[in-house]
Amino acid sequence: MAITHTQREEWQARAKQYLDRAGLILTPQEQKDIEIADLGLGEFEQTGLALVVYINTARVCAKELVLLPGQTCPQHLHPPVNGQPGKEETFRCRMGEVYQYVSGEPTSNPKAKPPKGREHTYNVWREIVLHPGEQYTIMPETWHWFQGGPQGAVVSEFSTRSSDEYDLFTDPEIRRAPEVVG
Amino acid sequence: MAITHTQREEWQARAKQYLDRAGLILTPQEQKDIEIADLGLGEFEQTGLALVVYINTARVCAKELVLLPGQTCPQHLHPPVNGQPGKEETFRCRMGEVYQYVSGEPTSNPKAKPPKGREHTYNVWREIVLHPGEQYTIMPETWHWFQGGPQGAVVSEFSTRSSDEYDLFTDPEIRRAPEVVG
Repeated sequence: MAITHTQREEWQARAKQYLDRAGLILTPQEQKDIEIADLGLGEFEQTGLALVVYINTARVCAKELVLLPGQTCPQHLHPPVNGQPGKEETFRCRMGEVYQYVSGEPTSNPKAKPPKGREHTYNVWREIVLHPGEQYTIMPETWHWFQGGPQGAVVSEFSTRSSDEYDLFTDPEIRRAPEVVG
Repeated sequence: MAITHTQREEWQARAKQYLDRAGLILTPQEQKDIEIADLGLGEFEQTGLALVVYINTARVCAKELVLLPGQTCPQHLHPPVNGQPGKEETFRCRMGEVYQYVSGEPTSNPKAKPPKGREHTYNVWREIVLHPGEQYTIMPETWHWFQGGPQGAVVSEFSTRSSDEYDLFTDPEIRRAPEVVG
């Protein structure tokens, strides 16, 4: 189900509020281009995120990610692409709190809960909690997912080239493709 | 001439003020580690910059750069290193104003003046002025330099690996080496 123009504009405006709270300034064009990614599930407030892509060349990518309170970027992995190692990402929290999960020793009593009805698609539980100014680097081919805390989150991502269409998701219903607006 | 501990702490505190103004949050350790680079000239307030390195792996680097009002990061170029293409950098202004100069058609009446006595080491004059939210990408092997505007500047840098020791500077007196504190 495609996102409607009205929904998209509402969510863009919400994302902008979080970016403002983080003190991050966008150009008018960047504001219009804020990407609303629902990953094809049509449940944006549960599964999805908003993105501002600053740059994405053959070698370098930088973005801001915006998560609503409790919103989840679902479990995925960056495989090698065209003979190059997979995407390497550093996430730096700028505002709010973000709960990250990666493969490794599971954390007892994790802070996040996976989106309802999709719990079976989440199976890595090593928790890293990031507050503003804290960061964590995810090397290629590491399963990971993350969720916004009670105030949502703004997270800067510094990475190698982003080629989302190659990402592998645990949830077979997910489609990470260019945004479709209905 | 090495920077004294007292000078270093003073300049770190000033850099921290600019980062605060940009709304950028650092951990206590990052605050202590703010790099004060005078490039060996011993004239930090004219030629130099302060840096916060968030991450620098084999593939990705992200930093914040802080420029005092009128302070100049001198003309340099990133050559290929170990068979890899040179460093590619995107500069995104977060606070203040930054004047960038790259090779190309010279701009008449440029806003910046090179540091006194070193004018002969500046010879690229295509000007790009960046305000908060604006950015510019410099591809490898492009001569470039930049200067903070009247309020100074905070600039986010997104790039491939940073290996400053390989940078080429127009000014033969410049030494870009790990910081020495006297």
